[in-house]
Amino acid sequence: MARVLVALGGNAIQRAHDAGTWADATRQMRRTAPVLAAIVARGHELVVTHGNGPQVGDLLREAELGAREVPPPPMHVLDAESEGQIGYLIAQELSAALRTARVPRVVVPIVSRTEVARRDPAFRHPTKPVGRFYSAAEAARLRRTAGWTLREDAARGGWRRVVPSPRPRRWLEGDAVRAALDGRLGRSCVFVVTGGGGIPVVRGGGGRYEGVEAVIDKDRAAAVVAAQIGAATLAIVTDVPGAAVGYGTPRQRWLGRVDAAELRRYRRAGEFAEGSMGPKVTAGLEFLAAGGRYLVITDIPSLARGLAGRAGTRVGEPP
Amino acid sequence: MARVLVALGGNAIQRAHDAGTWADATRQMRRTAPVLAAIVARGHELVVTHGNGPQVGDLLREAELGAREVPPPPMHVLDAESEGQIGYLIAQELSAALRTARVPRVVVPIVSRTEVARRDPAFRHPTKPVGRFYSAAEAARLRRTAGWTLREDAARGGWRRVVPSPRPRRWLEGDAVRAALDGRLGRSCVFVVTGGGGIPVVRGGGGRYEGVEAVIDKDRAAAVVAAQIGAATLAIVTDVPGAAVGYGTPRQRWLGRVDAAELRRYRRAGEFAEGSMGPKVTAGLEFLAAGGRYLVITDIPSLARGLAGRAGTRVGEPP
Repeated sequence: MARVLVALGGNAIQRAHDAGTWADATRQMRRTAPVLAAIVARGHELVVTHGNGPQVGDLLREAELGAREVPPPPMHVLDAESEGQIGYLIAQELSAALRTARVPRVVVPIVSRTEVARRDPAFRHPTKPVGRFYSAAEAARLRRTAGWTLREDAARGGWRRVVPSPRPRRWLEGDAVRAALDGRLGRSCVFVVTGGGGIPVVRGGGGRYEGVEAVIDKDRAAAVVAAQIGAATLAIVTDVPGAAVGYGTPRQRWLGRVDAAELRRYRRAGEFAEGSMGPKVTAGLEFLAAGGRYLVITDIPSLARGLAGRAGTRVGEPP
Repeated sequence: MARVLVALGGNAIQRAHDAGTWADATRQMRRTAPVLAAIVARGHELVVTHGNGPQVGDLLREAELGAREVPPPPMHVLDAESEGQIGYLIAQELSAALRTARVPRVVVPIVSRTEVARRDPAFRHPTKPVGRFYSAAEAARLRRTAGWTLREDAARGGWRRVVPSPRPRRWLEGDAVRAALDGRLGRSCVFVVTGGGGIPVVRGGGGRYEGVEAVIDKDRAAAVVAAQIGAATLAIVTDVPGAAVGYGTPRQRWLGRVDAAELRRYRRAGEFAEGSMGPKVTAGLEFLAAGGRYLVITDIPSLARGLAGRAGTRVGEPP
């Protein structure tokens, strides 16, 4: 019996090559949910977090296209909307899968805010592309009128807005969920938290928080969540069976059981690409440094074996 | 010390004559939040629910305008998005107000689903207008292609989609929040639940729930929530200081302290308009019939006095 945090990548929820309809997302989540339910059936306490890249991208495009009739909301508000949307999707499918697995639980999605530092250097160097593609002329106009930073994506033929990706520091609802879990609610509930890394906020005057135009890496946020709820296990679920050295080259080798020092060494050697495996390994190392017992990075088909210490890139002993 | 459920009407969150920007909503919620914080400062356990009419209307318009690039999501998904958006707004402003009032709490918005009956007669008689206005030709096309029911709003010069408003039966996350409150989390948290009445779902095969194209009256849902969490007090917050007989006529008289039988009599006599005061009174009577101790219907300026039994239309004794 352990407290397990699973961080679901985008593909577990919505496949990149689907049209992005609700029916597509439902179908994909219906494939993922039984794998999560099996964790509960093995007696573990489950908490779920997830990405929101494609979903918030769609919300941003809708907001931009609807702007002639509806004032477009700031990006942190779209993050909040995506937490509602994806939290609902996970609740629907995971509740059903838990019932089928004969471990009924109430799935409780929580609209979550994540504090970032106002002086985080990321605010001076926006790097994360979001939303629609624009022509050079539109890009120039948006830079002037909306104050956006835009960057050309020559390969895909257009300009896109880029926003900062600051480091998550604290999940604001974390104490409440920790208290609920410690009060044994983990036996009757599965919480879904910090979707898309959480809504990014900075501390303002008088303890007020203000939303900011940024995106938070969901795996980095997962490391913060794991520490706040005292999770023994962090499972980072992605599209590949684990981390690899020499990824995509003839010398590619999947990493199985490793130790933190080894992972750190490979990361320093540049083995893990920024914007893909890099932040996952960094998040995993942060989780271990904060006292986490077992880290596994793997894909949905290997998750059950990964949690049992028999698949994926893993550090520590499964509790 | 009592468990108090406050149901916020649309105007407490976003004023009808504002442009509907995030800044407008923030400004309005910043006016409302201190009134809610004062309830906590008086020693009560607070749970908040709220409407979503204008917000889900905007999301629907964005979805319709963005349809050429992004597949428009079903309405129940937009309900989920509005729960994320408004839950975030309330969390931001209420957390700050609670801190200012020296009763810091974690404000926890929960993405909530509300079960309705598949055979609810409302599904055969859609009544609730939502989304954009269309021309007669567009309306005919949407009736054919999307299977919508549309109705002409002659006064406002156009056709609008109408959806069913079935009766809420059960709030699916209610047992979890009840357990959290009974486990004393109400002393450290304020839960925000069933926004917009909750995402409407019907029970499908194998205990699975399916989202449906409908809207749930948020006050009727509040009565269900109050019963599920065992709230002693239900405060229905609207734009007027209370219910009135002869509303809008020369014989108009605001109702103060009344009893349930009296309210029921006035309702039967048709004193409370459908789609405005009618469902609020019905919800209040349902709350009292289910064992609720104190009901008050009033506006934000009178809420504090209303909860103390000195303003608003009220039934029972304030606990």
